[in-house]
Amino acid sequence: MTKKQGILVIADGLGDRPIKSLGDKTPLEYSNTPNMNFMLQKSMVGNVHPVAPGFTVGTDVGHLEIFGCDSKTVYPGRGPIEAISAGFDIQKGDVAFRGNFATIDDNEIVIDRRAGRINENTTELASAINNMTLDDGTKVFVVNLTEHRVAVILRNTNLSKELEGTDPGTACEGSRLVEPYSLDNSEAAKKTAKNLWEFTKKSCEILKNHPYNQARVSQGKHPANVILTRGAGMNKSIPNIAEKFKINAACIAGDITIGGIAKLVGFKYFIKDSFTGGYDTAIEEKGKLALKLINEGYDFVIVHVKATDLSGHDNLPLKKVEIIEKIDSMLGYLVENTDEEKCYITMTSDHSTPCELREHSGEPVPTFIYGSDVRRDNILQSGESFYVRGQLNNLTSRDIFQIQMNLMGFVKKTGA
Amino acid sequence: MTKKQGILVIADGLGDRPIKSLGDKTPLEYSNTPNMNFMLQKSMVGNVHPVAPGFTVGTDVGHLEIFGCDSKTVYPGRGPIEAISAGFDIQKGDVAFRGNFATIDDNEIVIDRRAGRINENTTELASAINNMTLDDGTKVFVVNLTEHRVAVILRNTNLSKELEGTDPGTACEGSRLVEPYSLDNSEAAKKTAKNLWEFTKKSCEILKNHPYNQARVSQGKHPANVILTRGAGMNKSIPNIAEKFKINAACIAGDITIGGIAKLVGFKYFIKDSFTGGYDTAIEEKGKLALKLINEGYDFVIVHVKATDLSGHDNLPLKKVEIIEKIDSMLGYLVENTDEEKCYITMTSDHSTPCELREHSGEPVPTFIYGSDVRRDNILQSGESFYVRGQLNNLTSRDIFQIQMNLMGFVKKTGA
Repeated sequence: MTKKQGILVIADGLGDRPIKSLGDKTPLEYSNTPNMNFMLQKSMVGNVHPVAPGFTVGTDVGHLEIFGCDSKTVYPGRGPIEAISAGFDIQKGDVAFRGNFATIDDNEIVIDRRAGRINENTTELASAINNMTLDDGTKVFVVNLTEHRVAVILRNTNLSKELEGTDPGTACEGSRLVEPYSLDNSEAAKKTAKNLWEFTKKSCEILKNHPYNQARVSQGKHPANVILTRGAGMNKSIPNIAEKFKINAACIAGDITIGGIAKLVGFKYFIKDSFTGGYDTAIEEKGKLALKLINEGYDFVIVHVKATDLSGHDNLPLKKVEIIEKIDSMLGYLVENTDEEKCYITMTSDHSTPCELREHSGEPVPTFIYGSDVRRDNILQSGESFYVRGQLNNLTSRDIFQIQMNLMGFVKKTGA
Repeated sequence: MTKKQGILVIADGLGDRPIKSLGDKTPLEYSNTPNMNFMLQKSMVGNVHPVAPGFTVGTDVGHLEIFGCDSKTVYPGRGPIEAISAGFDIQKGDVAFRGNFATIDDNEIVIDRRAGRINENTTELASAINNMTLDDGTKVFVVNLTEHRVAVILRNTNLSKELEGTDPGTACEGSRLVEPYSLDNSEAAKKTAKNLWEFTKKSCEILKNHPYNQARVSQGKHPANVILTRGAGMNKSIPNIAEKFKINAACIAGDITIGGIAKLVGFKYFIKDSFTGGYDTAIEEKGKLALKLINEGYDFVIVHVKATDLSGHDNLPLKKVEIIEKIDSMLGYLVENTDEEKCYITMTSDHSTPCELREHSGEPVPTFIYGSDVRRDNILQSGESFYVRGQLNNLTSRDIFQIQMNLMGFVKKTGA
């Protein structure tokens, strides 16, 4: 079987709805996308369901599906995803939480869920409360991630993920720290909840007295005097997709959660300081690195851009248009510098984030696969309402992964 | 998440095939539907499979799917649906049948499957044979429904639904009463068959001598001297969809089976004397009640019209057109009196009932979802052949439920 290469561009949260201020067009329909339009002449297109029609997914579930996994079977919850992203080796039976360094007052009221978006000395603060042994022998690990984010892992036999963590929630600054409780009344969950509370109390003591926090207080900053925890999960076995398809794959992303998921499925992760999860991310440079990796012989190179999603959450349609146009330029660069007979280029997304909704929604995501020999749809404009008529319409993100692998020559025949 | 409201109009049996006398148009294509055509400017459209391509369903299965249930897992058979519709509390292990009051002669030949469409004193007749205890201790309950219809419930341990009832079938007037038999040769089914036969014999004795039946005979009417049974089923747990999605939902229908299914999934059921399952049903009034319920704050209001299905069964294409045009007027009233930014309006059906076939068929059903912010399909005429090009085409009724819930803001994100 002849093998070809593929580049997959993921515009996070790209899908949208008609927006009044854009003349009832979606940001993608409104954008000036000469390179996409050029590519559409030799593309299969469609709006694609992240999982199934009308189901809303998070970035993590959306990417597991884009990378070819059945999230219903393998998604372990966000806690383990974060821990693994940070390089922590989750073991069977571990319960992992995503967490924040936060600030509480003397009455355990959460006054800042992100401790002033703390960005310094979090390694030292995490290490001060890492490796704790609780009264019943449970070990607790704390791994710092970007900014105020951490992962917290409890290790013992007979723990459970069926519990509520200490975080009172996004909309609940001003609420008291939640004393963890079992969600299913099982002994395992009760024990886990008790352990998480013991860890929280003990870590508060240590953090309160930590010199870095005392320095923050004297500088008038919010101290990182508590860890809020949420998103309990236990690891399931996520398949190594790279091994399964025998592909040599690379993922370029500024968002380390995406990088963590890519590593989980066996893809090599590439990040640079200029690749951020923000509006400022160096989109053009990501394209250049993708080309370099293709030229180095990677079979499949993924480029992830988070900023489309941010502009949805921030309800900034014109910002979304601006990011889409930058992605279009990067696509133009890739088309110009690769051979359409040897390398497919796909654009898709993990979910829709309609600006007016400011949240993820269940609509399918605009998708096309470009290459000299794909069956063509003769849809020559880019946008959700045009893509509807394409051959990929109403398929799923996992289908799109499989279709790319098929085109590239990495799908083994079933039967004879 | 911002919540919106939704109205769902179900035109039972709406889907059809090209009909010669309508110039090879379907009734929906032939109808004058200015309000639908107006709505289509801001709609997602498609022909939608009740369950899967080419599968023909009954009204009960079709509605379970429209209400978001997986009928393959939860459908208990028609017997239990009828019993539950009548308010009977089905317990685990009960076997329920749908039944008819019918007329047999002295040789047990069924001479009228509906006992002259008996419509009087059925409460008294049912009550005369209700609460019977059979030789092995099995209890039998008989609940009268509309006209000649009843539900029969057998209660004991170790019963089975794998049996044929006493009804020789629609096309078999002139045949003998069927002695019930096991379909799987199990002891439980044999026992249930024996019980059903004992009940049938004993109830015939009671009915034959009942004063109301003797009066019917003296008036030259067919006596209700037997109960024909069919559609054996046992209850499974039908999910409470209202609780699952945390929606406050209402269903307006003249057909009490639809009302029963709505109640089963946790929707409140509204009926009035003028809401019938017939051609005479007050469609305009149903629309007015729907608007009232929306204004009272229900999240989701369903309006069911049976008459489109009847006209299919009766092979009356122009009658179907007339009903569709009345539904169109009701849609116009709803559009005029609701806010398109706050309330979606969906039209769909439970299955196709092509006039020339006079029966349900497996074709997908015409469907659209209207609202200010849905992705538009720019399909501006109403009818099966136009809807094919829409974004909802080839999805399923359950998908359409999920998509409505997603638009209305009642779908929780999976993942983070």
